[in-house]
Amino acid sequence: MEAVTESKVNVRPLADRVLVEPAPAEEKTAFGIIIPDTAKEKPQRGTIVAVGTGKKDEPLTVQVGDTVLYGKYAGTEITVEGKEYLIMRESDIFAIV
Amino acid sequence: MEAVTESKVNVRPLADRVLVEPAPAEEKTAFGIIIPDTAKEKPQRGTIVAVGTGKKDEPLTVQVGDTVLYGKYAGTEITVEGKEYLIMRESDIFAIV
Amino acid sequence: MEAVTESKVNVRPLADRVLVEPAPAEEKTAFGIIIPDTAKEKPQRGTIVAVGTGKKDEPLTVQVGDTVLYGKYAGTEITVEGKEYLIMRESDIFAIV
Amino acid sequence: MEAVTESKVNVRPLADRVLVEPAPAEEKTAFGIIIPDTAKEKPQRGTIVAVGTGKKDEPLTVQVGDTVLYGKYAGTEITVEGKEYLIMRESDIFAIV
Amino acid sequence: MEAVTESKVNVRPLADRVLVEPAPAEEKTAFGIIIPDTAKEKPQRGTIVAVGTGKKDEPLTVQVGDTVLYGKYAGTEITVEGKEYLIMRESDIFAIV
Amino acid sequence: MEAVTESKVNVRPLADRVLVEPAPAEEKTAFGIIIPDTAKEKPQRGTIVAVGTGKKDEPLTVQVGDTVLYGKYAGTEITVEGKEYLIMRESDIFAIV
Amino acid sequence: MEAVTESKVNVRPLADRVLVEPAPAEEKTAFGIIIPDTAKEKPQRGTIVAVGTGKKDEPLTVQVGDTVLYGKYAGTEITVEGKEYLIMRESDIFAIV
Repeated sequence: MEAVTESKVNVRPLADRVLVEPAPAEEKTAFGIIIPDTAKEKPQRGTIVAVGTGKKDEPLTVQVGDTVLYGKYAGTEITVEGKEYLIMRESDIFAIV
Repeated sequence: MEAVTESKVNVRPLADRVLVEPAPAEEKTAFGIIIPDTAKEKPQRGTIVAVGTGKKDEPLTVQVGDTVLYGKYAGTEITVEGKEYLIMRESDIFAIV
Repeated sequence: MEAVTESKVNVRPLADRVLVEPAPAEEKTAFGIIIPDTAKEKPQRGTIVAVGTGKKDEPLTVQVGDTVLYGKYAGTEITVEGKEYLIMRESDIFAIV
Repeated sequence: MEAVTESKVNVRPLADRVLVEPAPAEEKTAFGIIIPDTAKEKPQRGTIVAVGTGKKDEPLTVQVGDTVLYGKYAGTEITVEGKEYLIMRESDIFAIV
Repeated sequence: MEAVTESKVNVRPLADRVLVEPAPAEEKTAFGIIIPDTAKEKPQRGTIVAVGTGKKDEPLTVQVGDTVLYGKYAGTEITVEGKEYLIMRESDIFAIV
Repeated sequence: MEAVTESKVNVRPLADRVLVEPAPAEEKTAFGIIIPDTAKEKPQRGTIVAVGTGKKDEPLTVQVGDTVLYGKYAGTEITVEGKEYLIMRESDIFAIV
Repeated sequence: MEAVTESKVNVRPLADRVLVEPAPAEEKTAFGIIIPDTAKEKPQRGTIVAVGTGKKDEPLTVQVGDTVLYGKYAGTEITVEGKEYLIMRESDIFAIV
């Protein structure tokens, strides 16, 4: 389920935004990350499926396929071809795992 | 209805502003985007019909004809020749779809 | 009434400020702009009658004679030779129509 | 009373500040400016009597003797040799009239 | 009492800060400045007794010995060798008189 | 327990973020730091276990293995392979001890 | 007690932070500084015992051993080897005395 496949979602985020496919809200993952109890109702881990071109002089660091950790309230929900995604700024992402 | 035709609206947005023609509030579109339930009362997708010249050293990314996703409360409503549009800053736009 | 005549108002706006003569609050204009219902009590369209010299490295875009759209609460009212004007920053202007 | 005489007030405003002698609160002036009703209790027009040296790379635009319009709550009142003045930043000034 | 003598106070203000010796709260001074009624409880005029070295690329304008006007709530009170002073940023100073 | 071993945690913090392993909430440590009484419920000292690549032109100062002091409410808790960590910005760190 | 000895505290403040050893809350000090009445409950004077390396292009001004004045609520309390210190940013320091 966290297979890192480059999705073909037809969405081009603008500037420093990225499109994230949230991971399902399971407690123990293949990579050993446990979402803390206080955050169980919404996953804080996901996979980058599309990235913007960055801001002026600031290219993005994350790439399509990266598994990332992000804040519980980060981003805006959008649905593309029946699947839910989050669109957020790269600065909302804490780390690549 | 989401045909990407370059409109001849006589409005020149200033600086980093763009003029957007909102898509009708339908659940499933030709491109497969489903507006999430919580946003049904107002479409969050639209077509760029006019663009500003950008800010100093920051040309705009979106172009006339682009279908874009934007925040539910983005922009100011204006009516030109009987049709409703939104005028907003490019930074209010999340992605091109 | 929206005749674009260069007024001779003796006011020199400072920096990025412009002097705007608001259009009367009529629903349908010669250019086909309809002021939305929620804004009827105060026109959001006007004509530039004087412009500042811009800020450092940022010359103004609007010119005397331009018909512009601006926010409902933009600017400060002043009265010159018996007529009411608004003095506002260019950034309060959405578009030239 | 709005005679533009260069006063000899011994005050050197710092940086982007200017010293303004407010005009009396009369409705119709020699220059034809009517202070709007809502502002009658305090004049919004005055004469520049001293100017600062500007901020780094930003010299001031107004000069001693200019009649200016400024915001109703702009500046700080000071009294010099028995006369009341306002000391304010140039950015508080809307226009030269 | 407003004699402009260079004090030997052993205080070196940092960056853009200055040390000010407030003038006594008298209504009419030797220089003809009247503190407005609303500010009588605390003097708004004082003498510079020590200055910082300025911020990067922004040397200070005021010098030791200058009589200055400053905002009623400007600065922090400190007592050195039994006398009360105010330490404030130069930007809190309106003018040299 | 505060042995400075470079952990092999598979987390790459973004930009100016670092991953910190908090020290246990004991009063007296091997290095002689006493957490003040008011902060006992949560340790303010920890060990850097992963660092970001820094922001543009601003490389990070702390290194993996550094023992650091940080604010009581700094960072976001994440759990990796059963252990709790904090991910925070370097600017939340006060000092290396 | 305010002897200016370079302490050997094993704390390296980050960036523009400094470690300060607060002076005891006595009214009259050897240097003649009287803490004003309103601040008696907590000293506002101390000695620099460690300094950071400064921010980019902004080296610090204070040095280890300097006696400084700082705001009453400046800094965060930490205890090192049984003694209480304050860690604060240099900008919280008003002056060297």
